[in-house]
Amino acid sequence: MNKDTGTKFSLHAQDGLARRGQVTTAHGVIDTPAFMPVGTVGSVKGLLPEQVAASGAQILLGNTYHLMLRPGAERVGRLGGLHRFMNWPGPILTDSGGFQVMSLSALRKMTEEGVTFRSHLDGSKHLLTPELSMEIQHHLDADITMAFDECTPFPATYPEAESSMERSMRWASRSKQAFQPRPGYGLFGIVQGSVHEDLRRRSVEALIDIGFDGYAVGGLAVGEGQETMLQVLDFTLPLLPAEHPRYLMGVGTPEDIVKAVQRGIDMFDCVIPTRAGRTARGYTPRGTLNLRNARHQEDSRPLDEACSCPACIGHSRAYIHHLFRAEEMLGPILLTLHNLHYYQSLMSGLRQAIEEGALDHFVQAFREQQALGDIPKTEAGT
Amino acid sequence: MNKDTGTKFSLHAQDGLARRGQVTTAHGVIDTPAFMPVGTVGSVKGLLPEQVAASGAQILLGNTYHLMLRPGAERVGRLGGLHRFMNWPGPILTDSGGFQVMSLSALRKMTEEGVTFRSHLDGSKHLLTPELSMEIQHHLDADITMAFDECTPFPATYPEAESSMERSMRWASRSKQAFQPRPGYGLFGIVQGSVHEDLRRRSVEALIDIGFDGYAVGGLAVGEGQETMLQVLDFTLPLLPAEHPRYLMGVGTPEDIVKAVQRGIDMFDCVIPTRAGRTARGYTPRGTLNLRNARHQEDSRPLDEACSCPACIGHSRAYIHHLFRAEEMLGPILLTLHNLHYYQSLMSGLRQAIEEGALDHFVQAFREQQALGDIPKTEAGT
Repeated sequence: MNKDTGTKFSLHAQDGLARRGQVTTAHGVIDTPAFMPVGTVGSVKGLLPEQVAASGAQILLGNTYHLMLRPGAERVGRLGGLHRFMNWPGPILTDSGGFQVMSLSALRKMTEEGVTFRSHLDGSKHLLTPELSMEIQHHLDADITMAFDECTPFPATYPEAESSMERSMRWASRSKQAFQPRPGYGLFGIVQGSVHEDLRRRSVEALIDIGFDGYAVGGLAVGEGQETMLQVLDFTLPLLPAEHPRYLMGVGTPEDIVKAVQRGIDMFDCVIPTRAGRTARGYTPRGTLNLRNARHQEDSRPLDEACSCPACIGHSRAYIHHLFRAEEMLGPILLTLHNLHYYQSLMSGLRQAIEEGALDHFVQAFREQQALGDIPKTEAGT
Repeated sequence: MNKDTGTKFSLHAQDGLARRGQVTTAHGVIDTPAFMPVGTVGSVKGLLPEQVAASGAQILLGNTYHLMLRPGAERVGRLGGLHRFMNWPGPILTDSGGFQVMSLSALRKMTEEGVTFRSHLDGSKHLLTPELSMEIQHHLDADITMAFDECTPFPATYPEAESSMERSMRWASRSKQAFQPRPGYGLFGIVQGSVHEDLRRRSVEALIDIGFDGYAVGGLAVGEGQETMLQVLDFTLPLLPAEHPRYLMGVGTPEDIVKAVQRGIDMFDCVIPTRAGRTARGYTPRGTLNLRNARHQEDSRPLDEACSCPACIGHSRAYIHHLFRAEEMLGPILLTLHNLHYYQSLMSGLRQAIEEGALDHFVQAFREQQALGDIPKTEAGT
């Protein structure tokens, strides 16, 4: 890959297998390990971009499948690209559409050429190919473009996983061919192979052969369970070139993230903090809370005394409980803000711990806090 | 009324009948003419309190009926009052519950004692009286408490309007008796009498006799039409004491507000800017827009080039159109923010015009702008 094009990765510190680095893109720098909030349809649900930035997020994820259907990738392109469209000046990574076309659309049919499907919005028929996925992500002006792949379903038989992985590798090659290299714009390949060590190895070898700016581990967090996911990371990550960022797609809970960072993952994305925020689930260092629970109804304390997010500064658990009970929009907004702050604060803690060579200590403290469970309820909250 | 208690009103300038003043309350000063955003159930829907303040709002309205049912006024009191509960440190006015108990609850029955009704939430039975309304507004810690009244329905026969007004005046007296005077906390009386000049006069006389910190004109904006509303203001406002603020309840459109300010109204509240924001209707100096309309789908211009609200700084009409089409929460949020900024900017313009003795000029320019209609659509937006 031409050294004048693509995203750049620099590794600043390591602690065990964990890595502290920076990805440099056309729209700015991402400190890794990084968590990317998901802005599915062109917004992180319920939040202004400045609120997302204030949480500490440096990069957002956008969804090719959603945006190609509405408002349309060419339209976003004519309006100046996704950064300008959603007023997010920082880096953006877009997925390839491969995962969501299989999970959301109707009457999908996969061939060597690509995936034919009907839109979940209006039933219109589309054919998504590696070449079109690259074109769409180019219109969106993604700093990091993901290769078009098939996320192998779980469970899959060995022959199914093998043929799915092999097709994804052919599509990765076509993605590379179709991608337009530019300075600051990178293309990431996606390792498939389900839970099989030899298939994952063959997939990594194929991707390295093609050459990418970063390597994602796909086909995980699809029902295989945390233990299996970590086993796959344990035998896959050592195969990946150290000089490129590693992205674990669609993961995950705070505990998933901590364990994957310990194994050498640099980037994450997940809808958990935002979706949980809309469904009254709050994340804190002492675990999760259900804000609809009556135990919070007269609790004047914030979600987390140590948190400095807009929800915890000035708003009580009782108030957020009330907002959810009364179905006020501000409930999901405040809790989404809080959850994103919690996730970013976790990432910041992980980065600092790696820099200080203190990751084991950090992880131990993280687990001890989580094991405590939520703060005891107040009398009035009963 | 003891001069050490209550809210204070100072009149700084007049232009014709229009007044530029300040109301001083326990939680701060309100520049008048003032518009109060409505925070029905303890939040201005979709916005953080700091976003509401940034729009220029100095005072919010809270609803006794909603808050007494959920989360309960005593609970709000135990949690430190409505300011602390919703994290709004500025002044708050609460309505008396009289209007909403008649419009929202089930099986309501009015007697001399008060109104018996069933909650629209759970069917529970309640009796709201002037005394209980005062107690609830005390728990809520309202800077401005409204007397408990009956908002006379429109149309009403003369005898109906008369007996309704007379009962409201007896309830006003009981409200005054039950209200706990404190420095910075005021009680406003409400003029009733439907569209009848003599009933309005008798109502004003009764209220002055009781003595209040401010005088509201109630029973308007209930279907009588703008012309009739203005006629009622024309014969009612000259009867009111100049040294107290005048509040036109539940009004209104920008044009309503301009015309009422010209007649000497100092305070307004209305759900229009917030409700419109949630239903894709945007307010600008050149009239209203429907952001769902396809004419905006590729329009890279902001709602209003001259507006400095968070929606207009950095977000296009095309983006807000997309958010509404995709049913993203951020659409209503951005448009509510914009509409509140527009309303506050209108109030600020009115205040400045009165100070400068240039209200006629301001109103003429306002009308000319409104008459222009929205900016012409772009080619791409067709």
